[in-house]
Formats: sequence, C-alpha cells, structure tokens
Amino acid sequence: MSDPVRLIYLDNAATTPVAPEVVDAMLPFYSEGYGNASSLHAAGRHARRAVEHARDELARRLGFQSEEIVFTSGATEADNLALIGLFLAHPHKRRIVTCAVEHHAVLHAASFLERQGAHVTVLPVDSVGRVDPEAVASALTDDTLVVSIMAGSNEIGTVQPIAEIASACRSRGVPFHTDAVQAFGKIPLSTDDVDLLSLSAHKFHGPKGVGLLAVRKGVRLRPVVHGGGHEGGLRSGTENVPGIVGMSTAAAIAVDSMPETAARMERLRQRIVDAVREIPGSRHNGDPENSLPHIVNASFAGIEGESLVMRLDERGVAASTGSACSSPELEASHVLRAIGVPLSMAHGSLRLSLGRQTSEAEIDEALRVLPEVIDDLRKISPFKVGD
Amino acid sequence: MSDPVRLIYLDNAATTPVAPEVVDAMLPFYSEGYGNASSLHAAGRHARRAVEHARDELARRLGFQSEEIVFTSGATEADNLALIGLFLAHPHKRRIVTCAVEHHAVLHAASFLERQGAHVTVLPVDSVGRVDPEAVASALTDDTLVVSIMAGSNEIGTVQPIAEIASACRSRGVPFHTDAVQAFGKIPLSTDDVDLLSLSAHKFHGPKGVGLLAVRKGVRLRPVVHGGGHEGGLRSGTENVPGIVGMSTAAAIAVDSMPETAARMERLRQRIVDAVREIPGSRHNGDPENSLPHIVNASFAGIEGESLVMRLDERGVAASTGSACSSPELEASHVLRAIGVPLSMAHGSLRLSLGRQTSEAEIDEALRVLPEVIDDLRKISPFKVGD
Repeated sequence: MSDPVRLIYLDNAATTPVAPEVVDAMLPFYSEGYGNASSLHAAGRHARRAVEHARDELARRLGFQSEEIVFTSGATEADNLALIGLFLAHPHKRRIVTCAVEHHAVLHAASFLERQGAHVTVLPVDSVGRVDPEAVASALTDDTLVVSIMAGSNEIGTVQPIAEIASACRSRGVPFHTDAVQAFGKIPLSTDDVDLLSLSAHKFHGPKGVGLLAVRKGVRLRPVVHGGGHEGGLRSGTENVPGIVGMSTAAAIAVDSMPETAARMERLRQRIVDAVREIPGSRHNGDPENSLPHIVNASFAGIEGESLVMRLDERGVAASTGSACSSPELEASHVLRAIGVPLSMAHGSLRLSLGRQTSEAEIDEALRVLPEVIDDLRKISPFKVGD
Repeated sequence: MSDPVRLIYLDNAATTPVAPEVVDAMLPFYSEGYGNASSLHAAGRHARRAVEHARDELARRLGFQSEEIVFTSGATEADNLALIGLFLAHPHKRRIVTCAVEHHAVLHAASFLERQGAHVTVLPVDSVGRVDPEAVASALTDDTLVVSIMAGSNEIGTVQPIAEIASACRSRGVPFHTDAVQAFGKIPLSTDDVDLLSLSAHKFHGPKGVGLLAVRKGVRLRPVVHGGGHEGGLRSGTENVPGIVGMSTAAAIAVDSMPETAARMERLRQRIVDAVREIPGSRHNGDPENSLPHIVNASFAGIEGESLVMRLDERGVAASTGSACSSPELEASHVLRAIGVPLSMAHGSLRLSLGRQTSEAEIDEALRVLPEVIDDLRKISPFKVGD
C-alpha cells in the first residue's frame, strides 16, 4: 500500500491525527495490559482499573459523575443510544424535538423512530444555522421524550445556545441531549442542565472506534445492543480498553490546552473567513458571531464542491465539501439547505476545518492556493462572475 | 497505574494479547494514515484503500464476497445486527430459533425481540452441549425469521454441527446465523450455507472494539445504528480504520497458522482434560469428541468457582469461571445448567482457555498448581470427597 501523500490537512472535522501521547497511552493495553475488564484475575483487574480511571477523568471534564458515563463505539452509536434508548424506556412519550442542522446520526435515528411510532418535530434554524431557544421551549409537549440539539455544527461551525435550551428543557422535565462531538475541547460547555451528551474520540486527536454517552442519573434508557450487560447494562460488548484509555488521554490534552488552542484556531478561522469574503461570488455559511473556532464553510458560485476538493487535493490541501459521512452522496447538504443557501451555491460548498496541529504557515499556503483553484475551475465552467 | 502481574494466561476465550504484527499493522493508521475513509482527498482515499483491502482479505478467508462484510464494533453488535436487523426488515417473519447455550449477545437480543413481538424457540442441547440438527429442522416454520446457532461454545468449547444445520435452513429458505467468535481460526468453518456470521477481532489476537457481520447477498437487513450510511447503510459511524486493519492482519495470521496451532492446542487441551479427570470430585463439561481445541471447562465438587479463580490468580494462573461477560453475576452459568450440570457443581466451574502463545511449560505449571489449589480450598470448605 502506498504512503499517503503529505497534505495540508484541513479536514479535522472529519477526523484528526491521533496525538502521539494518546498512542503512547494506548500501546501498553495492546501488549501487556490486554486483559478483559470483566475478568476476575489480575490481568482483568488491571484492565478494569484503566477503564474506570478513564471514566473518572472523562466524567470530571464533562461535568458528569463517573457512573453516568457509558462507553460506546463512537458518537453515532451514542446518539442512537440516547434517542432509541429513551424511546424504548418511555412507551408513553412519543415526541422527539430536534433541529434541521443536526448530524445524520440524530436525524436518521429520529426518522427510524418515526417509523416505530414517534412524532418528530424538526425545528428550523435561522440564516446562520442557529436554533431559537424560545422555539424549542414552545415545541415542548407533555409527551416529549427528548430534545436533541447539537452543541456546535460539524458542517458550518454554528454554536447553539445549549445552556438556554437545556435550562428550558430541565424546567419542563424533558430530557435534553446534545451531540457535543465538534464542540468538546473547542469551546467551554455548560452541562449542568444537559441530561445526555455524545462524544467521539477521533474528533479530538483520539482513536477511531470509541466514544461515549453521558447519561445523567435518573434518566432511564434501555439498551440498543444487548448481551453480557457491560456498561451498567446499557451497552454490552467487551470494553475497548485501549480505545477508552486513548479517549481519556486525548480529552485531557484537549481540555487542558483549550484556552491556547482555541484562541489560535479562532485567529486562523477569522483569516480564512476574511480571505473567502475577498473571493468574488463567495458566501460564508455559518454564524460570524457564535462559531466553533475550527470550522469554516463557504460556497463559491459556479463551482462544484467535489471538483474544488479534488483540485485542492492535487495542490496538497485536504478539505471537504461538508460532512465526511455523506461525501459519497451528491445531494446538496441538508445543513446548507436549512440555512437557505441557494441550491446552486450549496453545490459549490467547501469546509475547511482546523486541528491542534494546524499551523499559520499551512493556512498561508491554503489561502494562496484556494483563489487560484477557484479561478481555474471557473475558467472551465460556464459561470461568469457577476452572473 | 501499576504493571499487570505476569500470569500464565489461560483466559484466551475472554480476550487475547494482540499479536505484535497486528499492532505494527495498526500503528501507521494512528499517525500518518489517519484519514477518514469517507473523505474524498488523498488521506481519505488512503484510509479507504486500507479498509477495502482488509474487507477483501477477511471476506476471502470467511468464504464470503467483499461486499458482504459489514464492519461493527465487535461480535456483540454483530449478533444484535443479525437478529434485530432481520426482525426490522421482515415484519411478517416472527419466529427466532436458537439454542440454550448461545452467548448472551444472541439470547438477550432474542429476548429483546420477544418483547417487540417475536416468538423465540430455544432448543435444548444434549449433555455435552450439542444441538440436534434434526431438532433445528423440525423447529422451522413458515414464519421463521432466523436460526442462530453458534459455531463453537465460548464456555465449554462444544462444536456445533453448523454445516448440517445451515444446509437444513438453506433448503427451507430460512436465514442461518452463526456466532463464530470462538471457532474462527481454531477449526475449519464450512460457510457455504451460512447466511450471517459474526466475528470479534480480540478473540484471535486482534484489537478490542472491532468485529464484523458477514451478510450473504440477498439477505435483507435493516440497520440498528443509524447515521451517515456507512457500510452499505447497515452500520453508520466513521470506520475504525486501525481496528479494521488490525482485525484483517490478525485473521490472516490465525487462519494461516491454524493447522499447526490447532494441533498443538488440541494436545494441550487433552492433557488438561486428562489431568482434570484425575482430580477427585471433578467433571469435564463439554464434548470430548467435538471440541474447540482451546477451551476446557470443568467443575469441582465443594468448590466455589470465584474462589478457585482468585486462588489460581494468586498462584500466577489467570483463568475464568466461564464467560467473562457475566463474571460479576454470581448466578450459575446458563450453559452449564443447559447441559444438566447439577447446581452444586455448576457453582464450582472453571474455564481454562488457550491462546497461540500458550506454551507446554505453562500448562505443566498450571496443572501442577490446580490440584493443590483445589485441595487447599476443600480443606477450608465443609465438602468431603465422596460426599
């Protein structure tokens, strides 16, 4: 298999390189510390201690108790466990409230439950992708099972007012879930009124294949995956010990370095937004005021997003048209449609997303290449600037 | 965190040390090869090639086509996807046929579906834990959704006649699923008539947190975990690239070394069975004729299984009372009850399970320690040999 080409990697919202400290923390659990955390013997107890230490560390950084952390294979599974788990546990609560810019893990889990008899309210967002907390409060009914609103958008970076939304839910006694995959380690999270929270390690320089659902005490769920009764009966399957240790290590670094990293990212993000605005026929998709510091989404008239990504790739810049998950689809992004981006512009969208490793020099180079590539593409397209 | 005590590790049915070659194969995908396999750029395509290469290799070794492999977080999830996925896709087929010695991942998924309206036939097994293929054939009804019979028992090592059972199912047009977690890499598997097959990498010296469900073309499933539509829509969530690569590497080694490894394990297993028989008040649980080569289960009158495991642990031998998954429970094993082990004996059960690394010298030592520990325990218990 050939080596990967060295890229200026600006697709950190899709996945991040695993931090060397994280790999170092994981390695002993592949070799000597390989025990099954459910085994009674010393090798098993060693694995159990590592899992519980990771649980304590993650819980503390999320504002939850250790026993409220359920390890999963990632955020997609965590989102599914939140929604489907509540649905199975509360046969008399059938209303799911969510919003139009959620990740497909939430929207498709909700659609699945709709086919099982749930009623799904998909709240609109404004032109920068923000949900109105008052609209959430107004949507709450006596039979509302859950409100699920992400902390920050994976596609356009918009930060949602989750503290306000969570508080409104809490006062009505409705469980509030947030997919905090992109927000964790990037912005401070107020989780006091959050009942359920999903994370995925590989978005913050941890390994792929591991995540968690934090479940506030008193919130009743039923499992989606059945078996040996691991994770308090909520998620069966042998614990992924190296993955869990890696996630905890990655979370510690992400949170501890956040003040410095987020400020640096925010400066770079602002540079990208400014540079994009200078390109004719461009549009910044997202909230200029309330944005995650690592995500910029923009559209360019007369350009196909896939062509743009491929041309940037040839020039050594790794970017995305939007969510990596749905890249093989050629449909316009549901997020861009929700914020009212015209279809022609939505097809010409680009997401640049930063990681802790992203340097100023890389952004210099990317911003030098981007206008050139757009020019080149427009030369071979029927588009004229000013159209 | 303290180092794990060096043990004679005879709990390989719970989990295995990851082979160094497997770790070596995984490591590049944590550092340079960290791309998201759904991304369009070079880093994404590199990851995608690695995933598809692993899929090809695994498919070939399982007797399936590449496009029939669905990667999951492990066998528990794969078992759940098989049963629940079929249930969701076939609203008019409500009968699930399985047997009394299945893993909890199958039995508890079936119980869950029973609460959703399925009818579950749990076939008995004989005194060595074997299912009668004719009993399976007789249990098939027009509304049978699936037959799920494991290839080999994780607790007692009994090998099931899955080729016969699969053939009976095929001739009636009923999908046949097998949990091949313990059998894969230990005995040859005839999968021609198998429709669905579950694997977990960490049982054959691969990493924890990754597994697969093989799904024969034409078998319709619906997903259990919803989202970005990965794995042909059957299992959403960013692919665990290092885990998938590790599983493929581990499978290649397991299958290629099987003739030699299995023969060596079988000799060691026979030695253990013979040694156990010489201990007064003992009972071998399992099939002397049709056994996986790496699992021995035995009961000792007047002994508590947990005490036995703890005493062996103090003497440097890591063993299990049965399935690691349910170790915290103090109930007698459902498997031992199913083969008619008296309750008093079922509580005194021990599982010794071998790995590729297990040496003759380790078995010498374990078989020296075992009778001593049993003697010691009996001295402090009210039990008298001959009771």
